[in-house]
Amino acid sequence: MGMNDWVGNSLMGLRGESRGETGATHELTEEKQETFHFTIGPYTDPVMTARPGDRIVVETRDAFSGKIKTEQDKPSEKIRMPFANPQNGPIMIEGAEPGDALAVHIESMRPRGPQPRGTCAMIPEFGALTGTYYTATLNDPLPEVVRKVHVTEETVEWSDRVTLPYKPHIGTLSCSPEIDSISSLTPDNHGGNMDLPDMGPGTVTYLPVRVPGARLFIGDAHACQGDGEVCGVAVEHASLTTIRVDVIKGWTIEWPRLESDEMIMAIGSARPLEDATRIAYRELIRWMVADHGFDQWDAYMMLSQCGRVRLGNFVDPKYTVGAAVSKKYLAQ
Amino acid sequence: MGMNDWVGNSLMGLRGESRGETGATHELTEEKQETFHFTIGPYTDPVMTARPGDRIVVETRDAFSGKIKTEQDKPSEKIRMPFANPQNGPIMIEGAEPGDALAVHIESMRPRGPQPRGTCAMIPEFGALTGTYYTATLNDPLPEVVRKVHVTEETVEWSDRVTLPYKPHIGTLSCSPEIDSISSLTPDNHGGNMDLPDMGPGTVTYLPVRVPGARLFIGDAHACQGDGEVCGVAVEHASLTTIRVDVIKGWTIEWPRLESDEMIMAIGSARPLEDATRIAYRELIRWMVADHGFDQWDAYMMLSQCGRVRLGNFVDPKYTVGAAVSKKYLAQ
Amino acid sequence: MGMNDWVGNSLMGLRGESRGETGATHELTEEKQETFHFTIGPYTDPVMTARPGDRIVVETRDAFSGKIKTEQDKPSEKIRMPFANPQNGPIMIEGAEPGDALAVHIESMRPRGPQPRGTCAMIPEFGALTGTYYTATLNDPLPEVVRKVHVTEETVEWSDRVTLPYKPHIGTLSCSPEIDSISSLTPDNHGGNMDLPDMGPGTVTYLPVRVPGARLFIGDAHACQGDGEVCGVAVEHASLTTIRVDVIKGWTIEWPRLESDEMIMAIGSARPLEDATRIAYRELIRWMVADHGFDQWDAYMMLSQCGRVRLGNFVDPKYTVGAAVSKKYLAQ
Amino acid sequence: MGMNDWVGNSLMGLRGESRGETGATHELTEEKQETFHFTIGPYTDPVMTARPGDRIVVETRDAFSGKIKTEQDKPSEKIRMPFANPQNGPIMIEGAEPGDALAVHIESMRPRGPQPRGTCAMIPEFGALTGTYYTATLNDPLPEVVRKVHVTEETVEWSDRVTLPYKPHIGTLSCSPEIDSISSLTPDNHGGNMDLPDMGPGTVTYLPVRVPGARLFIGDAHACQGDGEVCGVAVEHASLTTIRVDVIKGWTIEWPRLESDEMIMAIGSARPLEDATRIAYRELIRWMVADHGFDQWDAYMMLSQCGRVRLGNFVDPKYTVGAAVSKKYLAQ
Repeated sequence: MGMNDWVGNSLMGLRGESRGETGATHELTEEKQETFHFTIGPYTDPVMTARPGDRIVVETRDAFSGKIKTEQDKPSEKIRMPFANPQNGPIMIEGAEPGDALAVHIESMRPRGPQPRGTCAMIPEFGALTGTYYTATLNDPLPEVVRKVHVTEETVEWSDRVTLPYKPHIGTLSCSPEIDSISSLTPDNHGGNMDLPDMGPGTVTYLPVRVPGARLFIGDAHACQGDGEVCGVAVEHASLTTIRVDVIKGWTIEWPRLESDEMIMAIGSARPLEDATRIAYRELIRWMVADHGFDQWDAYMMLSQCGRVRLGNFVDPKYTVGAAVSKKYLAQ
Repeated sequence: MGMNDWVGNSLMGLRGESRGETGATHELTEEKQETFHFTIGPYTDPVMTARPGDRIVVETRDAFSGKIKTEQDKPSEKIRMPFANPQNGPIMIEGAEPGDALAVHIESMRPRGPQPRGTCAMIPEFGALTGTYYTATLNDPLPEVVRKVHVTEETVEWSDRVTLPYKPHIGTLSCSPEIDSISSLTPDNHGGNMDLPDMGPGTVTYLPVRVPGARLFIGDAHACQGDGEVCGVAVEHASLTTIRVDVIKGWTIEWPRLESDEMIMAIGSARPLEDATRIAYRELIRWMVADHGFDQWDAYMMLSQCGRVRLGNFVDPKYTVGAAVSKKYLAQ
Repeated sequence: MGMNDWVGNSLMGLRGESRGETGATHELTEEKQETFHFTIGPYTDPVMTARPGDRIVVETRDAFSGKIKTEQDKPSEKIRMPFANPQNGPIMIEGAEPGDALAVHIESMRPRGPQPRGTCAMIPEFGALTGTYYTATLNDPLPEVVRKVHVTEETVEWSDRVTLPYKPHIGTLSCSPEIDSISSLTPDNHGGNMDLPDMGPGTVTYLPVRVPGARLFIGDAHACQGDGEVCGVAVEHASLTTIRVDVIKGWTIEWPRLESDEMIMAIGSARPLEDATRIAYRELIRWMVADHGFDQWDAYMMLSQCGRVRLGNFVDPKYTVGAAVSKKYLAQ
Repeated sequence: MGMNDWVGNSLMGLRGESRGETGATHELTEEKQETFHFTIGPYTDPVMTARPGDRIVVETRDAFSGKIKTEQDKPSEKIRMPFANPQNGPIMIEGAEPGDALAVHIESMRPRGPQPRGTCAMIPEFGALTGTYYTATLNDPLPEVVRKVHVTEETVEWSDRVTLPYKPHIGTLSCSPEIDSISSLTPDNHGGNMDLPDMGPGTVTYLPVRVPGARLFIGDAHACQGDGEVCGVAVEHASLTTIRVDVIKGWTIEWPRLESDEMIMAIGSARPLEDATRIAYRELIRWMVADHGFDQWDAYMMLSQCGRVRLGNFVDPKYTVGAAVSKKYLAQ
């Protein structure tokens, strides 16, 4: 059985406007995208329009816009902030209105571009184990180090010593806020730069729609990532990512949510990290109450016994946490 | 001696493009403003242009856009988020370029509009001593309470028991970010909703310029405010605020700064609150080193003995702290 | 193969003073313990002495000292703070000296006492989704709710709807600080109330020794627990817990560490939660550098790709995080 | 009028057991103290007993126990942790029982010992603008720098350039916790290392009594200190500190409080810093409601207009904040 076969029984499959019908396939190549975006908001021109059920094959760029080609290319010299983490989009989704949720099923991801395709780096005053722009210290910054990595559809050849499995996922996924335009480096209630390793092929992400047409942005593919993205950078790579979109009418969610074959997860992004975790757990409880018939206090106490937490990143301007519960405990 | 007399010797007075010459006076009435803004960014049409040294008399609206007229008007019913905290502007400043600083001297503030002009409120899930949107809890929210307050140029008649002095200041002051557009409720390195009681008549605020023309936004006048703005709301009121603007060419600052006759202050906004404080102190040290000839470690250790911290708000999406040092310790 | 078979190849197995020899078996019954402790420090009388390699069978009490017998027994009435979370011990370990590490292999755990043995509760101003003693709000507290749960060696019968697997672990495990005595509700660098679900049968925990004889405390068995222990309480139960202790001479660690057949984990406890996570990751890097031959920057960047984070609790006075790496990436 | 004349009308003056009568004067010399303490708890032998109304003249040592005599003496070499911040005491107070408050009126402080008496330092991984033990980073530590300072009863001769006024205060003041013993470097609800510049001559501090006799500890005199004690160290000096103690029977407070001629202040210590601020403001509201006849919501909203926040330290294991309101707004 394929990793996407369960999706027909997902909330997307059961309540999406497409009724499970796959529509047209669109290609969002680098050429078609032309101008990538570094801020996520309502002020940019749409790059295409899709209908519920449509499939979109997206050529994402890596977080450095491909400018780090060798281990001698320093991010601090090649990238002028805030022009990091380029996004494809915005893609308009027909029929999506404020108060709906946009469902994004990631069907597949694969690496593209010349080897070594993967890039990791230590960037001055960025990352979790260093003074940063917001956790301001007087210490000398850590050294700037670039690691170029060979990435295939199976493996990430980290070093002579260690080979990691290829576990791709999308780092940044968003609909547009209503009037704000938010840096593609920042996650918040619109989605954004969540860097959550669960957000990979075979899963469905639900995003709150806040403007007509939703205005979907997508980018920041990772070949793999540890919990917390501790040095600040995953194995960043250009990808060919295939998604299928759908609209859940009238399902109003305040924060992004994610569904897999095994679990449902609510996602919060905030500082400090406990606030991100609080948001994620409160939203998960609300979901269990609204859609799975749980009493609020029963859900709260039960998650104290079986809730699962996944740390996205704790390096961005806001940190991201997913709180999840196994579907086997949701069945009635 | 007037409270503004010292300004000729301020950094604005000494290094501003106007050479201390006051230029034209502009009036930014409600009618001229027409559309107030709830997001601070580069995507809105300028409302006027001023030159360095010009004076601008601004009719600011209160944070509720004047919709809370009685104690029966509930913010949760009258205000649809994110449409709180209306801003005048953007005002284009001739000659301001990225890398410069914009100086804003608040010359005077006075209340306007029919009595009771002042509004305070407890708003559900907003404020410091309650669960909030970001510090998510399952508790019932606090009651929604509105207090209308008589405000004159001398006093804030808080209650039968307590009369407070009128201590006006500007809650929200910003230049535009380069590509982001940020909610007028959020402070960050562009300025924004800092809610710092020091930012009143007789002081000069310096803001980083990140787009040509600076795009100055101003709003959110407070008749008075305690440190931290603990319930989430000051005595909000419509004001007539007179500012004089200037441009400090080539003075590149990363965060807002403030100068009074007595002290210099650097301002940081972040979560958690210690990060806001770290930013403020690091920026203050950088200022002392760059412009006042201090050794870095001497400044750091000396501020440990005489630095002064003012808490702006700890209720907004980011918290604001000012770190200051008396000018008497800067003299050589 | 049994879940403990790997321990011979653990750091405990290879470097422990017992040379893998199992010594005497001691029984630490409730009667022998007599007085349970609610603070962890150097000021209490030892309850027994063991040698490296010895096995100790401990009768732990539940976190409420067995006083919550029915769902009508309210913790706020039955427990006077700070007398929650009773600890067995201190057990003196022969030969343990400051600068050594104590290894505690949990061989097995099983529930004891009359059914329903398990207790969960919502306690006023305690837990993650409520105002608390330290995150002080003016909201009314959540209702006080007690859940008594049938617990066997296989299952936790949570509700009519949900049965959870029995996944026992030790919530609180410590050696004594040098001069402080720390509430058994608080985790810190000595160990303490970490509430880490990984700390169950088949794993080895390493604790820093700070006083001669180590002074081992143990308690707070959980029948199961979700990440974060979100409502503040796990399924607390009295247990029969069998441990085997050993001493790693001259292995000086600053924070607790854990080893399983699959991974090594460093444990940090602090507020805010990002600080706990920072500690855990820094300690993990130090471990990889010191004992597994990694370069510091290589380890840092690699954990950004494959580190795993487990949230212990984010409800105690300090929060606990474990950062882990799979042993398969440690092999050379 | 002297700075202590108001004390007769303080809560101590009006409700203290001594009825305003000054009793015996005790001298707690270094010789009498003999063994200074680095942990604050119930496990140490009392050094003397005093009655309500008695005066005690205390010879405090500086935070480095006098071991930093020159700028070549490095704290990292001279001080073995946790043996920093020596405390005098415990002083038993007759009649103090759990549920009472201990009042400590600081009548005077003056420096003692050979010049240069004052010591400031930058200590590796300690302070606000550096990675630390709890905010763990991989950066190289800041340089270790010691500054010896000439201190008189009028001035602190900081540098050739800057002379600061002598503004002495007590950094660490505590009664004993019930069963825990807490590092003298850590503040919490018992008091401890609050480093609050307000706690100087002419003020009264109220501490919760948790064990019979209160067990008062005192130490850590500062010649001056900035808000936040940003480099981690004030101008530490040995002092002759004269206090007068009293007992407020049945006045049960949860956190320390402070009263001056001008204001009342509640003190919170926690991480993150917003939690310390929340505690301080909640306790201040509770005080205004219980003893000054305010309605809870009126107090909350009014403090949003006139509350004053003083940052103690944000460098210790917990951070300290005082929230205050002017007495002129308390009068009815």
